[in-house]
Amino acid sequence: MSFSKSLLALTVISASFTSFAATPADIMIVDGTVLTMDNKKQVIDHGTVVVKDNKIIAVGGPELAKNYQASDVLNVNGDIVMPGLINTHTHASMTVFRSLADDVPDRLHRYIFPLESKMVSREMVRIGANLANIEMIKGGVTTYVDMYYFEDEVAKTVDKIGLRAVLGESVIKFPVADAKNADEGIEYAVNFINQYKNHPRITPAFAPHAPYTNSTEHLQKIAKLSQELNVPVMIHLAETDREQEEIAKRTGGKSPVQYMADIGALNNKVIAAHAIMVDEKDMDLLKQYDVGVAHNISANTKSAKGVAPVTTMLEKGIRVGLGTDGPMSSNTLTTLNELNLVGKIHKLENKDRAAMPPITVVEMATMGSARALHMEDKLGSLEEGKLADIIVIDTKSPNMVPMYSPYAALVYGANGSNVRHTIVDGKLLMKDRQLLTANEGSIIAEAQDFANQVRKTVIASGEVVK
Amino acid sequence: MSFSKSLLALTVISASFTSFAATPADIMIVDGTVLTMDNKKQVIDHGTVVVKDNKIIAVGGPELAKNYQASDVLNVNGDIVMPGLINTHTHASMTVFRSLADDVPDRLHRYIFPLESKMVSREMVRIGANLANIEMIKGGVTTYVDMYYFEDEVAKTVDKIGLRAVLGESVIKFPVADAKNADEGIEYAVNFINQYKNHPRITPAFAPHAPYTNSTEHLQKIAKLSQELNVPVMIHLAETDREQEEIAKRTGGKSPVQYMADIGALNNKVIAAHAIMVDEKDMDLLKQYDVGVAHNISANTKSAKGVAPVTTMLEKGIRVGLGTDGPMSSNTLTTLNELNLVGKIHKLENKDRAAMPPITVVEMATMGSARALHMEDKLGSLEEGKLADIIVIDTKSPNMVPMYSPYAALVYGANGSNVRHTIVDGKLLMKDRQLLTANEGSIIAEAQDFANQVRKTVIASGEVVK
Repeated sequence: MSFSKSLLALTVISASFTSFAATPADIMIVDGTVLTMDNKKQVIDHGTVVVKDNKIIAVGGPELAKNYQASDVLNVNGDIVMPGLINTHTHASMTVFRSLADDVPDRLHRYIFPLESKMVSREMVRIGANLANIEMIKGGVTTYVDMYYFEDEVAKTVDKIGLRAVLGESVIKFPVADAKNADEGIEYAVNFINQYKNHPRITPAFAPHAPYTNSTEHLQKIAKLSQELNVPVMIHLAETDREQEEIAKRTGGKSPVQYMADIGALNNKVIAAHAIMVDEKDMDLLKQYDVGVAHNISANTKSAKGVAPVTTMLEKGIRVGLGTDGPMSSNTLTTLNELNLVGKIHKLENKDRAAMPPITVVEMATMGSARALHMEDKLGSLEEGKLADIIVIDTKSPNMVPMYSPYAALVYGANGSNVRHTIVDGKLLMKDRQLLTANEGSIIAEAQDFANQVRKTVIASGEVVK
Repeated sequence: MSFSKSLLALTVISASFTSFAATPADIMIVDGTVLTMDNKKQVIDHGTVVVKDNKIIAVGGPELAKNYQASDVLNVNGDIVMPGLINTHTHASMTVFRSLADDVPDRLHRYIFPLESKMVSREMVRIGANLANIEMIKGGVTTYVDMYYFEDEVAKTVDKIGLRAVLGESVIKFPVADAKNADEGIEYAVNFINQYKNHPRITPAFAPHAPYTNSTEHLQKIAKLSQELNVPVMIHLAETDREQEEIAKRTGGKSPVQYMADIGALNNKVIAAHAIMVDEKDMDLLKQYDVGVAHNISANTKSAKGVAPVTTMLEKGIRVGLGTDGPMSSNTLTTLNELNLVGKIHKLENKDRAAMPPITVVEMATMGSARALHMEDKLGSLEEGKLADIIVIDTKSPNMVPMYSPYAALVYGANGSNVRHTIVDGKLLMKDRQLLTANEGSIIAEAQDFANQVRKTVIASGEVVK
């Protein structure tokens, strides 16, 4: 009896010690409208999110705050606190070409490839990636998936600024800036992958451009290497008429998705960008092989290619995330600017105002995108143990007032400039719209200087046919 | 000979006097990328725009600046200088309901009318209009076209804050907050029109809600009165299935546009919102009767109603301007956030990436909207003699860099938060994002208090069926 009493006493003492000796933390966000994006889609009013090192260590109500002693406390006064956006498809460095020749028909082949053959260089990739990085941080993107050339150069900028990224080195059958052919492209990619495979925030990857711009042998080789090296494979898939035609010619009538499955190049390492021109059978293959899909509504509508049947894909349980595509295509790099289009265009396509509700759109930009990358265990929601990629969205700007539904406010009301704070891997990269790990002015000046080179060489000379 | 020499001397002296005695002005904008939106679509690099009183008195190159002595000189360092946006259709005061029940089917009848019957009051109209006004100023809208109740209350807010507006008092056949029936609505409107008909920035107007929510007699009475009083008539037209059905029933199968023409209610005073469900014949009637059309892409897609055939309307020379519709519908109040949707969705609808190029979209938001209001002589472009409604858009934010085409940057890249300065009627209403004629914090606080009333009464009680 006296033994159990003293045990009780000990417990009480220990509990009160705990309540006084708050757990140390690095960042604590308090008084947020916390959209956890967890399985239950919990929204916590006056919520608290606690970060230690690069992880989220606690998420809860206001009562949680007293248990932690954080070196940086952000009182966000009701603003939205949510997982950082994951942009599942872009070509970041192409920022330096943004707003060039937007309406040229068959633009990839008639304008972009010729432009790139003149202007892509290691220097251009660095300048463009820097601009993209600051645009994404300011727009709430904390992870992005890139497909371009000189990805080791992109990696340096990502490493330095503190973002998270999946960086895919391009493989394509014709000569490009960093490889003469697909074999050289694969060699470049393997070297890059070996260089970055242990980086805490960078996942190196292969990026075969598309089925029709690579041979069957090279696509198979990449599939094999990606298994051996355990890295993702990003590819443009079921995107264009030309692709449909060329793959049909190559295979005697198969769709690109069917072709990829049949050659053994479809698996859970693949992140397929676009998937516009897919039928039920194609979608079933995407599900069967557990492929991730990057939906790029903005680029797909601007190019008049069509709208991927995403509502059907979601019904089938396909891993669909949201991407922007490159800045020549969308022309934005933050998926926050896409949410509005996703919501509205799928309602239009389905002739149903209840289709694609705001919560589904926000899900696609966060957990859905994490799933498309097969990174749902680490990213995409605010939950204990997940990596600390967190954004805070201003809710006191007139365009966000009032906020009966935070999901609706985000999808129909918010824009990239409403992002207040951006945290990646437990570090604040932007606080009250001020970048903390980059010099915005010098990055923009360098991009504008590069644009002047483009004006002087390519545009003034008329070398690139419009 | 000596006479002509002295004449010459006199001329020289007079010229040099002129160059020293610069013309006084109120505001001079220098070093702008000036999108005049004039007939030739002149873009002036390093351009100058000079304002005296409420008019633009000069537009030109950098050399112009030395001729004027302005009390306020804005050096905008390459930023876009353009005509203020004209929002041709909204219900401004509904800001206080924004993000409520966005996805409810048949929402107007099942949710919005019941909600309004509980919550609309003179007080609500004032609070909502104030919020709308600051959102529009911050988003670059300098003129808006409103349809709601207690428009005299909206007028007070517009008068005070310094915006320009066409304000239409609603007429509808069932009891609403400020009238028991359509006759009382007309009486209210006539009183309001008489009160405001000489206001320098406010154009009072009639706003019959729609053909199917008014009787033929009332629509005809309004048409007659609008001619006598020389004021606009705003109406929702060819917007919904229910409208199509009820007008077909009323007329033995006519379309709403045909019906309006046949009853003598279609003329150059009419600004028709939506015009989604129109065929070739309807469009020819809109052209024949010189009707203005307000295109509201965002609301029309969000409600899954469809896309107005605007490319055809423009080919037919119909006066098409851009609107947002009310903030429960779009959910924005600045057409700057609509440009992206207009460009992309019409490309998609036309299956042509060259359709609806950025210059056409910007035209629709400025001169096109001025034409829809039959105010193209006064508004819509930066030209000598026009009213001084001017906005400046930041081009150094990462999302706007680089800027090979200012039209593409505006349409595909800009958002409402990129507006730096807003000038209406020759007065700065916003400078470097700071509102000069309103207290943003107190307006937002008041709107949030009202939203709390909505939460406590309508939402908590479940009185409005979802």
